[in-house]
Amino acid sequence: MVNYKVIVSYDGTRYKGWQHLGEGELTIQDTLESAIKNVLDYTVQIHGSGRTDAGVHAKGQVFNMKVPFRITDEFQKGVNAALPDDIRILSVERTNGNFHARYSTVKKVYCYYIDTNEKQSVFQRKYTYHFPHVLDLEAMQKAKNNLIGKHDFSSFTDDKMSEKDKIRVLEWIKIKEKKGIITLTYCGDGFLQHMVRILTGTLLEVGQGRRKPEEIPMILEKKERAAAGFLVPAKGLFLDTVYYLEK
Amino acid sequence: MVNYKVIVSYDGTRYKGWQHLGEGELTIQDTLESAIKNVLDYTVQIHGSGRTDAGVHAKGQVFNMKVPFRITDEFQKGVNAALPDDIRILSVERTNGNFHARYSTVKKVYCYYIDTNEKQSVFQRKYTYHFPHVLDLEAMQKAKNNLIGKHDFSSFTDDKMSEKDKIRVLEWIKIKEKKGIITLTYCGDGFLQHMVRILTGTLLEVGQGRRKPEEIPMILEKKERAAAGFLVPAKGLFLDTVYYLEK
Repeated sequence: MVNYKVIVSYDGTRYKGWQHLGEGELTIQDTLESAIKNVLDYTVQIHGSGRTDAGVHAKGQVFNMKVPFRITDEFQKGVNAALPDDIRILSVERTNGNFHARYSTVKKVYCYYIDTNEKQSVFQRKYTYHFPHVLDLEAMQKAKNNLIGKHDFSSFTDDKMSEKDKIRVLEWIKIKEKKGIITLTYCGDGFLQHMVRILTGTLLEVGQGRRKPEEIPMILEKKERAAAGFLVPAKGLFLDTVYYLEK
Repeated sequence: MVNYKVIVSYDGTRYKGWQHLGEGELTIQDTLESAIKNVLDYTVQIHGSGRTDAGVHAKGQVFNMKVPFRITDEFQKGVNAALPDDIRILSVERTNGNFHARYSTVKKVYCYYIDTNEKQSVFQRKYTYHFPHVLDLEAMQKAKNNLIGKHDFSSFTDDKMSEKDKIRVLEWIKIKEKKGIITLTYCGDGFLQHMVRILTGTLLEVGQGRRKPEEIPMILEKKERAAAGFLVPAKGLFLDTVYYLEK
């Protein structure tokens, strides 16, 4: 079998997330597998770097697939032609047989976009969360410093599978503002279900003065979802980049 | 009657253009008039600075409307709540009785966005024209210099009403490139039907080397549509700003 690493970008608006769900449910995985089958005349199963939830976008999601033949240079063009215009394959490269898009991950970067302007830009409405409030960015920076590092992030997930390990390393968070659009970028070795969206909701509550930056360690310690902030909507979230040690 | 000047932004994707067409045809004007009627409980007719074609967007379209009473500060919020999320009123101000959004215009700025990357960004797909070709920007700059000024733009319109004056002043054109996205910005005292889109198609043909910058004066002289370049799609076009001498 030949193993391929594929980078794909998608607008998640129409989809019920990455992962195959079942008949009648539109997902990114199913749409990709169906387009690939069209082109190769062969049924493949693709393995994503992770699930993205319904409505979440990706600039650079990664998947791998194994096929019993070498695919040609025309493959990418053909699949893009077969795909709807909200999904685009950006690159395809042959990789070693051990590579797995999910298990070989070393870190991931997610971005979350918040439009704080009074009137949301109509052109960004599907890609930003409209939150028309004045935010204290300095307080958010302080809170951020309490979030980064190696922690048990049980308070920052909706994953009910309590037996699973909830310890993750949050390497860095960047907070930028330009023309009222705030971008929060998160880099870590892995993210729990809803983690980026709950981290963002918590940081927004700090920005509004509803929480203090000093409360963060206590929220982490409590290890319960109710201690953290609100879940921001999916549409502002982008899986930006997935990193691997090897190709 | 009290006269109001309103600035509005819209994503034209779903609409058959600005202008009212008739029953069952979704237009920006009808959608705005209906939302305003909802809020004021009074039927108004709005006057746009000009028609935008089906699929064309606006960052700052302007209209005026006359009502027999003063509207409150709540008006804008109420109309925005009544509007679908692809149309947003950005400002409302009282103006003098003589102001007319169309006849008082002194100049307009339009932008056209071209994605020349091999794979179109899925997030920009509704707002850019995908034209994956290497373009000679220097040749386009030269051609642009032959287009600006006061000319009869008969070759650059699909308007068949030949008796109408086709002379316009094209004040400036700017050509910018960033990460493969080319922005053409046009400023003039008025634009004929399809004029920006035909100017853009002609400049793209120059960029591809299919025409020379020196051919522009001949194209203008011919005064026939067939002499100019192709009509680029509506979705890359934005009415950016409308200027007036007075409020």
